[in-house]
Amino acid sequence: MPHHDVQAKRNFKLVIEYDGSKYHGWQRQQGALTIQEVLESCLEVMLQTSVRAKASGRTDAGVHARGQVVSFACRTRLRPGDIHRGLNSLLPPDIVVLTADEMPDSFHARFSASSKTYAYRILNRPVPSALERSFSWHIPQPLCLPEMLDCLRILEGDHDFAAFMASGSSVTSTRRCMIRADLERPDEDHLVFHFEANGFLRHMVRTLVGTVVAVGRRKLTPPGFRAILESKDRRKAGMTAPAHGLYLVCVNYDAEVCSPDRQKGSHT
Amino acid sequence: MPHHDVQAKRNFKLVIEYDGSKYHGWQRQQGALTIQEVLESCLEVMLQTSVRAKASGRTDAGVHARGQVVSFACRTRLRPGDIHRGLNSLLPPDIVVLTADEMPDSFHARFSASSKTYAYRILNRPVPSALERSFSWHIPQPLCLPEMLDCLRILEGDHDFAAFMASGSSVTSTRRCMIRADLERPDEDHLVFHFEANGFLRHMVRTLVGTVVAVGRRKLTPPGFRAILESKDRRKAGMTAPAHGLYLVCVNYDAEVCSPDRQKGSHT
Repeated sequence: MPHHDVQAKRNFKLVIEYDGSKYHGWQRQQGALTIQEVLESCLEVMLQTSVRAKASGRTDAGVHARGQVVSFACRTRLRPGDIHRGLNSLLPPDIVVLTADEMPDSFHARFSASSKTYAYRILNRPVPSALERSFSWHIPQPLCLPEMLDCLRILEGDHDFAAFMASGSSVTSTRRCMIRADLERPDEDHLVFHFEANGFLRHMVRTLVGTVVAVGRRKLTPPGFRAILESKDRRKAGMTAPAHGLYLVCVNYDAEVCSPDRQKGSHT
Repeated sequence: MPHHDVQAKRNFKLVIEYDGSKYHGWQRQQGALTIQEVLESCLEVMLQTSVRAKASGRTDAGVHARGQVVSFACRTRLRPGDIHRGLNSLLPPDIVVLTADEMPDSFHARFSASSKTYAYRILNRPVPSALERSFSWHIPQPLCLPEMLDCLRILEGDHDFAAFMASGSSVTSTRRCMIRADLERPDEDHLVFHFEANGFLRHMVRTLVGTVVAVGRRKLTPPGFRAILESKDRRKAGMTAPAHGLYLVCVNYDAEVCSPDRQKGSHT
């Protein structure tokens, strides 16, 4: 077992999966149960010290994660494998640590990220589903796929996404690069959107999905969709799709930033 | 709108989907919430009379259904489409009516069934899943697929399945015909069993899965598995797999029995 100087802070990266159904999103807030609060209290029990967990970004209430990334620094002698197993034995079953690694001090879950990937799941059949009620948006009307795909092609590349940002947000820039925007039909009843961008504005994926679905329902055309993007005016975009269809799939880092500090030990 | 004699009882067939997580199975029982009780109370509210709903068979606590079949008889002027919409507006979101049809009087969800199909879902990766915790059995150890498939081939055909019946059950015969027993790997992390038989004994699928998994974990061989089947001795079989991986997929009826009574109207 390697010896660690208990005085020096060490930096860890966790990849976590969660079912967001019963949480008020990632970020700690007064009077509401959040993922951050639950994770930090388990870390505190395990490490016997208070720890600040930093995520790649917030997720809204009800949004799920298949691969949210969290980093935290602390003084501990525990190895990443101990932290992995220890956390999973303390966490409730709707939050699971997938991997735990020790990282160079410079690694930060949010600032080191080069891009993020989201998926949005739609159940497209006349009747709702009992089994998927918390895991997809039910749309009973038929949707026109080719026109929806046209919209996604419009989104790819560098754009000002101000029209698709939650009203009331304040950010320095609303320009983002959409690396990938597509749609697959894994079976007759489902549609799954995939979005990868170097950053997302608040509610951006859900507003994009709501507006693309308006095109699929022929309430809007692809040129109309393009005009909304170019208007940069949130009041022109469609409805915000419900949170429970949205998944943070993974957070991507450049190879040199992301590789765990093998000398210090890792556990995946 | 067709005229219906309010004096004559009419016979209906429902196909329902449910998330069994919070229910104590299908069958009504004192002091525990069951699917039958919830469905019958919604039928009673809608039809203004008490109704006895008969399912194709019980499902245990925690077991899910993608296509459970229920039949009931009552005096009503409502059309199947009204019953379909009315029930879905009254039922909680974890029980959904997929189709509603009017049937000949001779139709009975259980006695008319020619076979039933179950699926059993396994998550086979080192770490558990937050999102699937109520929908699959997590097995962290690697499983040996070819030997598991050998067991399934042994099961196909006519057998006495007494070794795979819950202890304490009393049935007149423990012989059943296994029409299909197979296993697919839809992706790297999942295994899904499919079983179709002309009938299933109590806990039969879960005991079969538990014992086939013992073979996959090399605690038993396919010849040992065959010996258990031939012993007809429940004490020799493996563990009962957990309920939350099990799905009643569909109930099959012969065409002449199953076809809805089109003259009387139907809604799917």
